[in-house]
Amino acid sequence: MSSEQLYDQIRQKNSFLCIGLDTEISKLPAHLIHAEYPLFEFNKKIIDSTYDLAVAYKPNVAFYESLGAAGWLQLEKTVNYIRNNYPDVLVIADAKRGDIGNTSKKYAETFFKQLDCDAVTVAPYMGSDSVMPFLEYPGKWVILLALTSNQGASDFQFHGSSVQKPLFEAVLYKSLEWGTPGNMMYVIGATRASMLVKVREIVPDHFLLIPGVGAQGGDLADVVKYGMNKRCGLLVNSSRAIIYADSSVRYAESARQKAAEMQAQMAGLMKQTIPNS
Amino acid sequence: MSSEQLYDQIRQKNSFLCIGLDTEISKLPAHLIHAEYPLFEFNKKIIDSTYDLAVAYKPNVAFYESLGAAGWLQLEKTVNYIRNNYPDVLVIADAKRGDIGNTSKKYAETFFKQLDCDAVTVAPYMGSDSVMPFLEYPGKWVILLALTSNQGASDFQFHGSSVQKPLFEAVLYKSLEWGTPGNMMYVIGATRASMLVKVREIVPDHFLLIPGVGAQGGDLADVVKYGMNKRCGLLVNSSRAIIYADSSVRYAESARQKAAEMQAQMAGLMKQTIPNS
Repeated sequence: MSSEQLYDQIRQKNSFLCIGLDTEISKLPAHLIHAEYPLFEFNKKIIDSTYDLAVAYKPNVAFYESLGAAGWLQLEKTVNYIRNNYPDVLVIADAKRGDIGNTSKKYAETFFKQLDCDAVTVAPYMGSDSVMPFLEYPGKWVILLALTSNQGASDFQFHGSSVQKPLFEAVLYKSLEWGTPGNMMYVIGATRASMLVKVREIVPDHFLLIPGVGAQGGDLADVVKYGMNKRCGLLVNSSRAIIYADSSVRYAESARQKAAEMQAQMAGLMKQTIPNS
Repeated sequence: MSSEQLYDQIRQKNSFLCIGLDTEISKLPAHLIHAEYPLFEFNKKIIDSTYDLAVAYKPNVAFYESLGAAGWLQLEKTVNYIRNNYPDVLVIADAKRGDIGNTSKKYAETFFKQLDCDAVTVAPYMGSDSVMPFLEYPGKWVILLALTSNQGASDFQFHGSSVQKPLFEAVLYKSLEWGTPGNMMYVIGATRASMLVKVREIVPDHFLLIPGVGAQGGDLADVVKYGMNKRCGLLVNSSRAIIYADSSVRYAESARQKAAEMQAQMAGLMKQTIPNS
């Protein structure tokens, strides 16, 4: 998917919502536990009830992988279901992979060939040859971890900041040599919205994937104020607040309601910020 | 497995060899391609012919995952085969995972419960809560990326070094607050053997997993000189040089021969360095 196609979808839906499919067997409504493919059945109804409100879905691979081969099969079914039914929606494998060149090449095959995802999250620690193999697929995206929303983010992502640029800025600068606003995005945690000013100085045109709005304390208005660019440039993720809004048989309707609340807020903020969107 | 059990095995076998099972479908001997579980069949013969020379096996998850659910099944079969037949051998999932706390918890379940591995490689970029969930399993190990052997390692792992400690040293220091020599090891690339002096100042007692000897240019004698401690403290990995030594039906015998050459070299170096081992 090109950035133009993504922006078209954002304008059509008046939304930059990404729904995180962190689908955990222990949190599923009771009636699904004994289904043949419980994670997939759960996801299918979430997707069917929210696809007109969200521009991206982001299954987190850990939740599938923890069930072994059976989990991978359900991840594959989920990706295929979105592909076949809602082909305009961006599918992000939240995998945070990264290894030496010949190994990252296999991970790129995993997410772009074995699974037909549009994007994969990649960890930068191992540098250029751990990222480049993911960029060899036209129309696919690397979403590089820069500044994350978790507590441990401050352990290393600000390393060096007392006298030179902090590590997360070094990651942004260096990666400009690797990718473009057409094939690379960045993870920037919403719990640090004020940092978006600095981020936008370095990468004004790239899309940013923003986790941490809601449950983790980030504020959507602040994210838009500091992070939105003239082609939106934001994908704001919400996982648990949407998919686990309700643990009854009505979980999909409740998920839709939560997603609709976020979409309405997003539509209002976009209208203020990009008047011609 | 405790560090005592690992060191006992090292002394018994006179070896600190780890064999990397980077098993790639396109590199298998022709007669295996049409087997029901080709990666597993290949691994089984490699393991059977080298288990007395190696103290650890390290399947790299990317190579299995790239085949989807079928690949995961073969990874599971490989781990179970080692567990059931050679229970004294350390099994390392080379996965380089790391995510926010509740997600790393699922990855820990993947490698320590769904698969019964002894150790998993973890990427440090996201900090404490991305690593801690892996340390909650008694007898299991985190192998944290510190200084890797690939070309891109210099992009970020030395960040900050002009005026303060480089990032990889910050990772070593910080992680001393998280784990102990009994549940944490570090990846230190052999292509940077002279750096081992600095590494050993910070983590004198930890085991180090050393990739990059052989094909990637690292020298085993240098690794031992700068990195061995009084309880060995080293696991030196070789993958392709052993498992792809020969692409004929005799691949397992050739793998044994390569592994035996490395083991003999290791036995000699250990005798010089730890006289009472």
